[in-house]
Amino acid sequence: MNTDEFRKNGYAFVDWAADYLEEIEKYPVKARVKPGDIKSQIPGSPPEKGEKMEEIFGDFKEIIIPGMTHWQHPGWFAYFPANNSPESILAELLTAGMGAQCMVWATSPAATELEEVVTEWLKQMLHLPEDWAGVIQDTASTATLCALLTAREWKSNFQVNEKGMEGKFVIYVSQEAHSSAEKGGKIAGFGRGNIRYIETDEKFAMKPEELERAIIEDQEKGMRPTAVVATLGTTSSGAFDPLDELGRICKKHSVWLHVDAAYAGPAAMLEEKRHLFRGLENVDSFVFNPHKWLLTNFDCSVYYVKNPELLTRTMSIDPEYLKTAHDQEVKNFRDWGVPLGRRFRALKLWFVLRSYGTEGLQEFLREHIRLGEFFKNLVLEDPDFELMAPAELGLVCFRYNSGDIKGENLDNFNRQLMEGINSRGEVFLTHTVLGEKFVLRMAIGQRTTREEHVRKAWEIIKEETRNLKDK
Amino acid sequence: MNTDEFRKNGYAFVDWAADYLEEIEKYPVKARVKPGDIKSQIPGSPPEKGEKMEEIFGDFKEIIIPGMTHWQHPGWFAYFPANNSPESILAELLTAGMGAQCMVWATSPAATELEEVVTEWLKQMLHLPEDWAGVIQDTASTATLCALLTAREWKSNFQVNEKGMEGKFVIYVSQEAHSSAEKGGKIAGFGRGNIRYIETDEKFAMKPEELERAIIEDQEKGMRPTAVVATLGTTSSGAFDPLDELGRICKKHSVWLHVDAAYAGPAAMLEEKRHLFRGLENVDSFVFNPHKWLLTNFDCSVYYVKNPELLTRTMSIDPEYLKTAHDQEVKNFRDWGVPLGRRFRALKLWFVLRSYGTEGLQEFLREHIRLGEFFKNLVLEDPDFELMAPAELGLVCFRYNSGDIKGENLDNFNRQLMEGINSRGEVFLTHTVLGEKFVLRMAIGQRTTREEHVRKAWEIIKEETRNLKDK
Repeated sequence: MNTDEFRKNGYAFVDWAADYLEEIEKYPVKARVKPGDIKSQIPGSPPEKGEKMEEIFGDFKEIIIPGMTHWQHPGWFAYFPANNSPESILAELLTAGMGAQCMVWATSPAATELEEVVTEWLKQMLHLPEDWAGVIQDTASTATLCALLTAREWKSNFQVNEKGMEGKFVIYVSQEAHSSAEKGGKIAGFGRGNIRYIETDEKFAMKPEELERAIIEDQEKGMRPTAVVATLGTTSSGAFDPLDELGRICKKHSVWLHVDAAYAGPAAMLEEKRHLFRGLENVDSFVFNPHKWLLTNFDCSVYYVKNPELLTRTMSIDPEYLKTAHDQEVKNFRDWGVPLGRRFRALKLWFVLRSYGTEGLQEFLREHIRLGEFFKNLVLEDPDFELMAPAELGLVCFRYNSGDIKGENLDNFNRQLMEGINSRGEVFLTHTVLGEKFVLRMAIGQRTTREEHVRKAWEIIKEETRNLKDK
Repeated sequence: MNTDEFRKNGYAFVDWAADYLEEIEKYPVKARVKPGDIKSQIPGSPPEKGEKMEEIFGDFKEIIIPGMTHWQHPGWFAYFPANNSPESILAELLTAGMGAQCMVWATSPAATELEEVVTEWLKQMLHLPEDWAGVIQDTASTATLCALLTAREWKSNFQVNEKGMEGKFVIYVSQEAHSSAEKGGKIAGFGRGNIRYIETDEKFAMKPEELERAIIEDQEKGMRPTAVVATLGTTSSGAFDPLDELGRICKKHSVWLHVDAAYAGPAAMLEEKRHLFRGLENVDSFVFNPHKWLLTNFDCSVYYVKNPELLTRTMSIDPEYLKTAHDQEVKNFRDWGVPLGRRFRALKLWFVLRSYGTEGLQEFLREHIRLGEFFKNLVLEDPDFELMAPAELGLVCFRYNSGDIKGENLDNFNRQLMEGINSRGEVFLTHTVLGEKFVLRMAIGQRTTREEHVRKAWEIIKEETRNLKDK
């Protein structure tokens, strides 16, 4: 493809993306395909000769798009949001065009320095402690793994990196922590048996007294309490662990405190929500995902550490072919995470932060919180439904429960209700289990979601409830 | 930004990318900036109010671009190539537009199934064993980490995942292996002290007899020989470890055999190079990077495993909020790697494989190999220079050595020569150390590199040599 064809196709692709953003509501949110439907439409072997872009683009529209679940749909209430924005889409085009590889400063100085700038900006916007240093990772899973590895090395005086794991290093999480803590613990060699799941209170937040008891118990057994992974905004219900108290306990017992604020992080920009983040000064590491609820398309996860030297000492390798003249003066972000190669992710974040400004982003976040409140009230006012967890932000956990169905049947009813709702194609929501109860999650956070979409979702929920009861 | 503005800006960005591809030679390959130059041009705090796209785009062109090292420049001979292509740039635009998150089949069925299709296509194109299953990862570092983790679990009967690391698990690599093996070994809890660096032969390939001796020695000491990371196309010199013999040794001693073919992998498409890949049938896992030498912009690393069940059992977590109705019938790629969230990387690969076809890609690879041969002959024919390693593909290791300078001075001369060459801005090459000698690396593999660029590079090398000798 020469550059004229690139221009021509580029305009057409931009038009497609614009149309997609405009017309996204015409698609069912959740793909209506069965396993194998897409594969069966694509040849089992690659072509010998090159094909024309028109054909490939045609197949993209006809085969791929009908098989996609549309994360940018305003009826997206599933999992967590992963919103993009026109600004971040455009920045990704520039990133791909440059094709830069940002492993060390010398391989793309501007990418490294812009990463320092945007993580500094976000630190200020979220009112995070001034002395933290930031880096962009792909996902919170990877950032949490980095935190567990750094904690392991800090606790062992860097002896695990040298000699291999010996002895029992223990991780503490709440029963509501994300599965990435378990996965990270397994990868880093702690073992699942050395992860303690601390009981939660009625708000699904970690009980600090239970944490301290577990730490002391393990110390007495000769084990090594190493890290606590606290969550601000749990995946199931958006619960906030009491950071303040956890921080005091961690400090007292020399345990690393990592905070997973993957979803809820941006709420720290809001004066009225900042109390939920109290206690950050005792935190050792912190992750949140601009690719969830901050308009920056996947992937873009920002990881902060109080002491970068512990991180880089944990992750660094120093082969001859990667040495450069500036290694002593600059940040080489390859030593701040798992992979060596790194995309230029700071660019899209820069475009987003500048396009919206602090005020624009606050407005965006507040609207979703208002819609969450609005939906919560619909649930609370309806005698057939009950709220299943406090809803601090845009995530509302609820279920049908009018008293006429009990126990397991109630779980089944709610599961069928969810399937009925999702089969309509206008909205998509997912479930969780809280206190052994099957619960529906309404996660409001899509860029394009307006009050009408939340109202519509509620209508559908009510309608499908009636349909299911009439069956 | 509304969709009309998105269109307008989108066209402008496409034009910029087209101009960039056309005019890339006007930029110095390596950024001419000092540490801090970029940061100092950007405000230390984010804007309160949103800014106009024209301003942001203007700053991108004026501040960011002069601070970039241009990986797509035809004078790029540094590290390894990381080539993109017009087709893959355009596919990234679609990917960003959809903003999909491909953690499980249900969250984007087409992305999951297309990933199965393109990894199957590549398997056929590279003549890899039929029973292998593929997945796309971000980088070879992550894939190698997955291999080491799977080997650890396989060797321990999944007890490390359960109970934590106990005992000495050992990894074997050649002295020329990539640093990602060491990094993965540290992350996975093996410890640097349990990584054995096996001696290499005169071609910088692992000596199989030395490997077997080390394995036996460790077994006798009660340690657990766990994995060999073999390299096809080492980073320093492009050496190929003797897979055939390594496979026999691994099989005999029950050791996992992982192959890092990050750079050289695509050469398996060529009949005349396939002998270098002999022995794949005894391999347990294999990684290569289409983002290096296969026209697919970073990141895109393809990882194959012989037994996917061992991988998914190692990596899987199963929280309630991620369960879907189809989990038994489909592949959920979140269990095939480290992060939970996943980008839709298969799309750009599909666009590339279809646009070029097998024949187009073979032609592309052969041209770089021809240019490598051409450069190698220039070196061999010049009495002032010597070839420092066999050059099987586009990577040629060489140095100035006319006999007039000795020892450390010779190393210094070559280092200064490299700095002189790179300061010109027309080409960029990097160095390594082979057998304690400072060596220049000429890595030919950029999409736009033609014979004239290689000739020019040689002219510059000769000129800078004269300049340095005249000093």
